[in-house]
This record gives sequence, C-alpha cells and structure tokens, in this order.
Amino acid sequence: MSTETEAPVVVSVDLGARSYDIVIGPAILGSAGVEIARRIPGTRAAIVTDANVAAAHLRTLRDALSAAGIGHEVVTIAPGEKSKSFATLQDTVDAILAARLERGDTVIALGGGVVGDLAGFAAAIVRRGMNFVQAPTSLLAQVDSSVGGKTGINTGHGKNLVGVFHQPRLVLADTAALDTLPPREFRAGYAEMAKYGLIDRPEFFAWLENNWKDIFAGGAARVEAIARSCRAKADVVARDEHEVGDRALLNLGHTFGHALEAATCYDSARLVHGEGVAIGMALAHRFSARLNLASPDDAERVEAHLREVGLPTRLSDVPGGLPDAEALLAYIAQDKKVARGALTFILTRGIGQAFIAKDVPISQVLSFLEENLAP
Amino acid sequence: MSTETEAPVVVSVDLGARSYDIVIGPAILGSAGVEIARRIPGTRAAIVTDANVAAAHLRTLRDALSAAGIGHEVVTIAPGEKSKSFATLQDTVDAILAARLERGDTVIALGGGVVGDLAGFAAAIVRRGMNFVQAPTSLLAQVDSSVGGKTGINTGHGKNLVGVFHQPRLVLADTAALDTLPPREFRAGYAEMAKYGLIDRPEFFAWLENNWKDIFAGGAARVEAIARSCRAKADVVARDEHEVGDRALLNLGHTFGHALEAATCYDSARLVHGEGVAIGMALAHRFSARLNLASPDDAERVEAHLREVGLPTRLSDVPGGLPDAEALLAYIAQDKKVARGALTFILTRGIGQAFIAKDVPISQVLSFLEENLAP
Ligand SMILES: NC(=O)c1ccc[n+]([C@@H]2O[C@H](COP(=O)([O-])OP(=O)(O)OC[C@H]3O[C@@H](n4cnc5c(N)ncnc54)[C@H](O)[C@@H]3O)[C@@H](O)[C@H]2O)c1
Ligand SMILES: NC(=O)c1ccc[n+]([C@@H]2O[C@H](COP(=O)([O-])OP(=O)(O)OC[C@H]3O[C@@H](n4cnc5c(N)ncnc54)[C@H](O)[C@@H]3O)[C@@H](O)[C@H]2O)c1
Ligand SMILES: [Zn+2]
Ligand SMILES: [Zn+2]
Repeated sequence: MSTETEAPVVVSVDLGARSYDIVIGPAILGSAGVEIARRIPGTRAAIVTDANVAAAHLRTLRDALSAAGIGHEVVTIAPGEKSKSFATLQDTVDAILAARLERGDTVIALGGGVVGDLAGFAAAIVRRGMNFVQAPTSLLAQVDSSVGGKTGINTGHGKNLVGVFHQPRLVLADTAALDTLPPREFRAGYAEMAKYGLIDRPEFFAWLENNWKDIFAGGAARVEAIARSCRAKADVVARDEHEVGDRALLNLGHTFGHALEAATCYDSARLVHGEGVAIGMALAHRFSARLNLASPDDAERVEAHLREVGLPTRLSDVPGGLPDAEALLAYIAQDKKVARGALTFILTRGIGQAFIAKDVPISQVLSFLEENLAP
Repeated sequence: MSTETEAPVVVSVDLGARSYDIVIGPAILGSAGVEIARRIPGTRAAIVTDANVAAAHLRTLRDALSAAGIGHEVVTIAPGEKSKSFATLQDTVDAILAARLERGDTVIALGGGVVGDLAGFAAAIVRRGMNFVQAPTSLLAQVDSSVGGKTGINTGHGKNLVGVFHQPRLVLADTAALDTLPPREFRAGYAEMAKYGLIDRPEFFAWLENNWKDIFAGGAARVEAIARSCRAKADVVARDEHEVGDRALLNLGHTFGHALEAATCYDSARLVHGEGVAIGMALAHRFSARLNLASPDDAERVEAHLREVGLPTRLSDVPGGLPDAEALLAYIAQDKKVARGALTFILTRGIGQAFIAKDVPISQVLSFLEENLAP
C-alpha cells in the first residue's frame, strides 16, 4: 500500500446545521483526538465500548485523546445484541452522569452497531442531548449504522422500536481496525455494502464483483469501498433524514431478513443481521423475478456474487431449520402495517433498480415463501 | 361567568414547521377529540395519566375521543415525582407498543407535570418519535411544563437529567379541571405564573397582585392569567428552543428552589416544586437588593404578594429544618458548572427586570445564605 492511499478520505453528510464528516482511513483512530478537538474544542468525553473491541482498540483511542488533552472516562458494556436494552441504557446513562459530563461534552462510540446504537441513544438523552462521535469498528457499522443518526434499543416487542434520531458530530472509520473483526462479521457487513449497489448503483455492484478480494484483504480498495458506501447512504439520509420517504429503500433485503432473524430468535450463532440481509436480498430479487418485475438473470447474478464471498442466500442456508411459511409471514407482518391484505416491500426491476412497492398481496408472499421452503 | 368568556383562548407557539396551539378554556377536555382529529386525522391514541387525575377527568377525555372516533388505550401510572424514572418509562413504552400504535399515532398526557414529562419522553422515543398532545391538569403544567417541549425523567444524579426536546402537536388546558386540584398544588403553580411577571412583565405582576383572588376562584380571570403565562413562556421558547441562551431566564428562583427541594429530599410533604420556586424568587430579589442591583422595596413587594396568596418565602418557612449554608451551597453547585469560584444565577434589577448573571462569587452566595438561615 502506498503512502498516498493512506491519506484519509472524507465523505460529508449534508444536513444543514447538523452536517458532519465521515473520515475514513487505515489508522484514523490514532488521529481521533486531533479530529475531535478541532470540531469540539475544550470537550471532555466518555468512550462507550464493548469488551471485545476494548481489548483490541481502546488503548489506541485513549492515547489519541490524551495526546490531544481530551480528558475521558470509559464505559464498557457486554458484547452482543442483548446490550441494546433499557437496563444497559440506564447503566450507560448513569456512568456518563457519574463522570459529571456536561451538555457540551462528548460521547464516543467505539465498537460495532450495538455500541453505536446504544451510545448514540444515551448521548441523545443525557442532559437532553450531548455531542456524539462514532468510531465504528465493524464493517457493518462503518458502512451503515454509524451514518444517518438512527439510535436506539430493542424491547420485547421487537428490535429498534425505541430510540431517537441523533446525528453524530463526526464519524471516524478506521479501516485497519477491521483486521481484528471475525471474518463472518466482515462478510455480514459486506452484505450491506452490496446493498447500496443493488438499490441504485449498478456500477458499484459491478465494481464489487471485480474487487471484493482486495476489499477483504484491506488497503486502498477497502477504503474506497467503504467511502462509496458511506456516500450512498449519506445521499439517501440527506434526502430523507427522518424516513418519511425513500430512506425506506435502505430496507432492501430487510423485510425477509428481519423475519429470519426473529425466526432464529436473534441467535447470532445461527444468523447474524448481515447474513439475514444477504438471504433477504437474494429473495427480494428472486421474488421480483417471480412477479415478472425483473429478469431472473439478475437474481442469479446477485446470488452468485453473495455466495462467492461466502454469504448465505437461501432459506435452507439457515442452520437449525425454519418454521413454516405462515409463521414466517407472521414475523414479516409483525412490525409492519398490514393494510387491506397487502404489505410494503422493497422490490426491484433489476440490479440497481430497487423501488418501494406499497401493495404486495400477502397471498403472493405466502406462496413464494412456500416454494422457497420446499426441499 | 358569561358565555363569551367561555370561548377558548388560543395561544400559538411559533416554532416554524413545529408550531402548535395552546387551547385554553374551562371545558376544553370535552372538545379534545375534535381538536385532535382536526390536527392529526386518522390517529389512534394512548392516554397516559396518573391515578388521581384518572379518577377526576379520564372519563371526560375518553368520551371526547370516542365521540370523534379516536380509538385509544389508557396507561395509568402512580402519582408523584417517583414515576419520573427509568422503570416507569419502560413500562409506559411497553404499554404503548403493546397497543400496537404506529409512528403516526398519538400519545396524550392527561395530568400534571410528572405525567407530561414522562409521557412526552415516551412519545419521543417510541418508534423514534410519535405525535404528542398535552392535556395538562395542574396549574403548574398549564402555565409551564406543558409548553416548550422539555421532556424527561430523573436519575440518582439529579432531576430532569435524562430526556429530550419533543414539542407537542397541541396543548389543551382545561381551566375548570383545576377545580379538583389540591389548593396547595394550585398555589405552587401560581408561583410559576408570578415568575413570568417578575422576569420581564411588570404589568402582568401588577395585574396578578390585583386579580389573584379571581384567578383562584376560577372563571375568566383564570383563563386570562393562564393565557398570558403561556404567551410569556411561548415567547421565550420561540426565541431559544434548546436553551442555549436566554431561555435560562425561566430559571428565576429555581437555583435556590432546586437546592431546597434537594435538601428536603424531594419530599412533597415538606416542599413542592412551586413552593421552592416561591422561596427562591423571594431570595433572588433579596439577594439582588443585597448586591445593590435592585431596590429592597421590590424585594418586599414580591415577598408580600407571595405571602398574601399563601406561598412560603423564607428559608424558615420550610418545615423540618434545613442544613447549614455550606450544605445548601453544595446543592446549588451540584448541577451547575462552577467556573473559577463563580456561579451563574438569575438576578434582577427590579420587578420585571431579571437577567442572567454569569459570575456571582460563591463567597457572596454563602454569606447571603448564612444571613437568611440565622434565626
Ligand atoms: N443505526 C442504524 O442505522 C443501524 C443500521 C444497521 C444496523 N444497526 C444495528 O447494528 C447492530 C449490528 O451491528 P454489528 O454487526 O456491528 O454488531 P456488533 O456491534 O454486535 O458487532 C459484532 C461483533 O463484532 C465485535 N467487534 C466489533 N468490532 C470489532 C473489531 N474491530 N475487532 C473485533 N471484534 C469486533 C463485537 O464485539 C461483536 O461481538 C444491530 O443492533 C442493528 O440493529 C443499526
Ligand atoms: N417540562 C418542563 O418544562 C417542566 C417545567 C416545570 C416543571 N416540570 C416538572 O413538572 C413536575 C411537577 O408538575 P406538577 O406540579 O404538575 O406535579 P404532578 O404531576 O405530580 O401533580 C401534582 C399532584 O396533583 C395531582 N393532580 C394533577 N392534576 C390534578 C387535578 N386536576 N385534580 C386532582 N389532582 C390533580 C397529581 O396526581 C399530583 O398528585 C416536576 O416533575 C417538574 O420537574 C417540567
Ligand atoms: Zn441492515
Ligand atoms: Zn419550575
């Protein structure tokens, strides 16, 4: 890797007074103190992280903050989706208050999407809103969850049902920090990256087909892929910050995916989010072909690429078996308004041509699921 | 009371796209369904209330909603400040989700400031933000807490330290509903009303001195007093929604008041918030006179009026005794930045001439407290 390619890439998210930069580079955590101090002079900080990430990257961030004179405390939570709970939220809020941070101080999320969603929510509600900085360390967090300001926790009624929009002041994506990420988590994040190509950037999808090995290896291609993904998400968010319109396109693959996550009890040993999304995207393309909206060739091309990088694409890829089609449909309907027997789905007319379909008949979803469950 | 005076008065809060009406009148709860349906067509609702208020006013609100075809569920919490907790927040959120309300549906707070702060926070975080309507039933809530969008709960670290800004879509202040309010609570709310006069409306304070008996009795004077108070608060909020500037003037009397509440362990048998504010306002005027900022005559006039309506004005009015001046000062410093031995205080140059003083020496606060504690 040449020195040139190591210069960080900056993607800016355009939200008027709340605009912010996503700074992407292979060692950007080491510059965190300087980057934060430049944007929030005089701030103190609370770093929220999980035990896995702390072991690998906390030292680097703390040293960087200290070098820039940013006093800070650390709040470490247990790794995993279970930490997106009221109990952990309360503990995190209490720890931030115990550190006597003020409204002008900063909460820094160092970790994957779980840490980011939880810490962002805590930052939004302590003293009615503190500064928030994302330092995402999973690929999923770098290309998806750290951008756009959605924060929140889960409840017994479903995932992400409680939270607020709270935009970060800065996102620092250290692409070399991904080297310690388990390969399965890297692949899961890759599914969200491919999603941006499938929604409306066919040339990006084609580029991924040709460059995915370099992205997995690290270096300049990884930085470029993450930057292009952030650009894609930032554009959607700038158009529709609060998801009243086409931000919903980002849910491509997620209707099926969420149902599979629920059906496997959010057990990450069986299925992680990005794997559910990979299967969901393959199904969304196949379903669109089946409805004669898109060519079956596109569905095959999507499936072939996802399988090539090692992602699951079929219902039968889910280990431990699935409930029947009626039960899967019930999971799909759970967190959606079912209006007059129809559902809203993200469908496609081909690679890079996704759209929001508001009146998909439940009966067609059901028979499609039955076909796909058949051995 | 003539029919004319019964026509509701509308005060509008000017916040651009988030502007809303405060509708004030002696039987406005009975029109709640119509008022809500007009502004949020097709909405369903969850009413959050406390057991005291439910006994007196829930039936009226439910009938009004049903008559307008607004399907609704009821969430009843325990009365009292203790309900502004993470535990009650979680219960409330769960109940709203169990009712399967969507983002376009509405949370209605029917009660005092406790219900309003809690329900508003729940509305802000369920599905990242539902519609919120305030139906305040205490005088304090009608003239203060229901206007301006501050929501939140308490933690072990202090009051109102966790929450968000979430503006209501509508405030419905039923002035006749105050007839069931305990007289002590009515007086406490009156203190906040007097506060608006003391901040920057000397003519309003003079009007209150002449009309307070009519306000306590109910009828047109009460509607007018509440409307003028809402206008005063709405003006401040429109200028400085997120309290980065002179919204802090609303804290007149509150620095001393909060310290007294903390020193009496938030035990409402000893001191309710508005009583703390009454003593705090009297002290703020006396302290300003002592610093030669204002005439002692003004301090005496403030004290005389508050005593006339039955409010406490002196440290010795707090039943059960107080800790010493050092301890009170520690409470004052607790939720404030103490910069270089100085505190921010709301002081005054006379009635209706309050201002934010940023560098009040701690030593002067201390000796003032010592004098006022002396028997
Ligand atoms: N806010 C949003 O817009 C948004 C968007 C998509 C997903 N999400 C949320 O994101 C969450 C999923 O995010 P995730 O996949 O990052 O999960 P995660 O945070 O649980 O991270 C996955 C695992 O990788 C570990 N890890 C993270 N970075 C590491 C590193 N550099 N080295 C070693 N281990 C590391 C974590 O400890 C964890 O065990 C879900 O809760 C989902 O709801 C939010
Ligand atoms: N959000 C804001 O901007 C803001 C501003 C000021 C105060 N507050 C908060 O408001 C709260 C205090 O509000 P409050 O004084 O209304 O307290 P409250 O809600 O506890 O009400 C006081 C008592 O009166 C009862 N009550 C209310 N209306 C009644 C009625 N019509 N008939 C019979 N009983 C009735 C309640 O059950 C309660 O017992 C505090 O938590 C304070 O922090 C918030
Ligand atoms: Zn996703
Ligand atoms: Zn008050």
